[in-house]
Amino acid sequence: MSHEVNNATKPCIAFIGIGLIGGSWALALRRAGAVSRILALDSSQASLHRALELGVIDAIADVHDLSAADVIILSVPVGAMEEVCRQITTQTLKANCVISDVGSSKASVLAAVAHAFGGEVPAFFVPGHPIAGREYSGVDAARADLFDHHRVILTPLPHTDPYALGVISRLWLAAGAFISCLDVQQHDEILAATSHLPHVLSYVLVDMLAQSGKAEAMFAYSAGGFRDFTRIASGDPIMWRDICLNNRAPIRALLEAYRAALDLFLEQMQAGDGAAIEERFRRAKTCRDDHYRKESS
Amino acid sequence: MSHEVNNATKPCIAFIGIGLIGGSWALALRRAGAVSRILALDSSQASLHRALELGVIDAIADVHDLSAADVIILSVPVGAMEEVCRQITTQTLKANCVISDVGSSKASVLAAVAHAFGGEVPAFFVPGHPIAGREYSGVDAARADLFDHHRVILTPLPHTDPYALGVISRLWLAAGAFISCLDVQQHDEILAATSHLPHVLSYVLVDMLAQSGKAEAMFAYSAGGFRDFTRIASGDPIMWRDICLNNRAPIRALLEAYRAALDLFLEQMQAGDGAAIEERFRRAKTCRDDHYRKESS
Repeated sequence: MSHEVNNATKPCIAFIGIGLIGGSWALALRRAGAVSRILALDSSQASLHRALELGVIDAIADVHDLSAADVIILSVPVGAMEEVCRQITTQTLKANCVISDVGSSKASVLAAVAHAFGGEVPAFFVPGHPIAGREYSGVDAARADLFDHHRVILTPLPHTDPYALGVISRLWLAAGAFISCLDVQQHDEILAATSHLPHVLSYVLVDMLAQSGKAEAMFAYSAGGFRDFTRIASGDPIMWRDICLNNRAPIRALLEAYRAALDLFLEQMQAGDGAAIEERFRRAKTCRDDHYRKESS
Repeated sequence: MSHEVNNATKPCIAFIGIGLIGGSWALALRRAGAVSRILALDSSQASLHRALELGVIDAIADVHDLSAADVIILSVPVGAMEEVCRQITTQTLKANCVISDVGSSKASVLAAVAHAFGGEVPAFFVPGHPIAGREYSGVDAARADLFDHHRVILTPLPHTDPYALGVISRLWLAAGAFISCLDVQQHDEILAATSHLPHVLSYVLVDMLAQSGKAEAMFAYSAGGFRDFTRIASGDPIMWRDICLNNRAPIRALLEAYRAALDLFLEQMQAGDGAAIEERFRRAKTCRDDHYRKESS
């Protein structure tokens, strides 16, 4: 008995979209020897050639080559998911072909997939989202270790095929990640709070300074706190535009609550209510310190 | 000719408040051999004993010992500046004694100093603010290299004594920092934008999550972007409460502009105006990338 799998049983994987996330997953799978062949499609020929040059993929594919893939990964901005799924439906896929995605909003991706596949999400589609990223984008920023010890959230539906779920889980584990399952709505609410809202807040702040005409002086006199706070404002504008448009309801609810919290803070500051401000700050600090202390212990 | 200064001409320095900033400056001055003796006063006996134990200071002092100091540094939260200055005015200081501070809001510190000293800021008082920090506070977090290659902003007044300015400048240079001079209002506006407002935004977000009852799950599913964005929400609540209360006008103006910018974003998101959102995000990314590219080249 051996856990070695010969090449013939390793899947051929096709990435549709070969940027930071698709490229990093490809590199990690190659590092693990977990796939037999890595293909990629992308609307940008430059990205495809760069991916080939960097050894991220084995070959540039076109939509007809999808019939050779055991696994197809949708690693495009969430706004492009439906169009990409439509292309897939024009092809005859391999028996047992599994499809997954890496989108940051799950309800909208599932709606797009269902729409493209004639009304229902296919059982062989496994919705996924790796909780890892960088402020750099594109295949040049891809790294084999991007997902090491990072969480990947899968949001399978009741009718998702267990075999398909197993295939995608194995490919994430091979990439060094660990897996959590959440339901779709939970995922979208949690990510709105911990990722989408912070990105909006950071983008809006930097844009406000950029438009003030004093950005240069302000950046010059800033320190590490500002650098870290604004790091996420260097993310890919198209990817984040799509996330905002595709996870609108939870982001809106949080933004409205946040605005109310800011208003209360403004009132407290104007009233000179030091006790209330200190209490807020202390509650926030305690919450954050508790979590990261737990995490590092 | 030698640049060596013998011990007799090196100043004796007294820190009033020996936390992260005072402690780090003390360690840096010791590393540089730039002072003959380091004293400290603090309202916390525990901090003083810890500072002594860690070798940050040479001796615990009381207010009468200030008469032996060549340089007195006010390194307490900005809300405590006036009270500390009042204590100083009860003592007979050395001829040529120089006083400086490290407060993050300059107009309020100068008002407090003027008030304590009977109406005017003394010529021997040099307002200062090092642009460096950590999310940890207290003397245990102090590091000799905290200011290495970091900027210190001095905001001297027209009547500030050039000798005093020179003494404080030399002590910052010895600590590895470089110096910029700004006027008081410029300082307070720039810092409100690049430091005070981001701290408020981060504290208010984490507090909102803390009070949602779902903080644990949210932190668990968060990634590096969230960790960095919220790092400043681990700052000292009293120090940041004082900064908010003492730099109210510029913070309020920015918070109001920020709230308007968030409202516009909400409208654009609700309207599905992807072009407007992408334009904002791209403007922010370009502004930030340009600065940090310049900085690293």
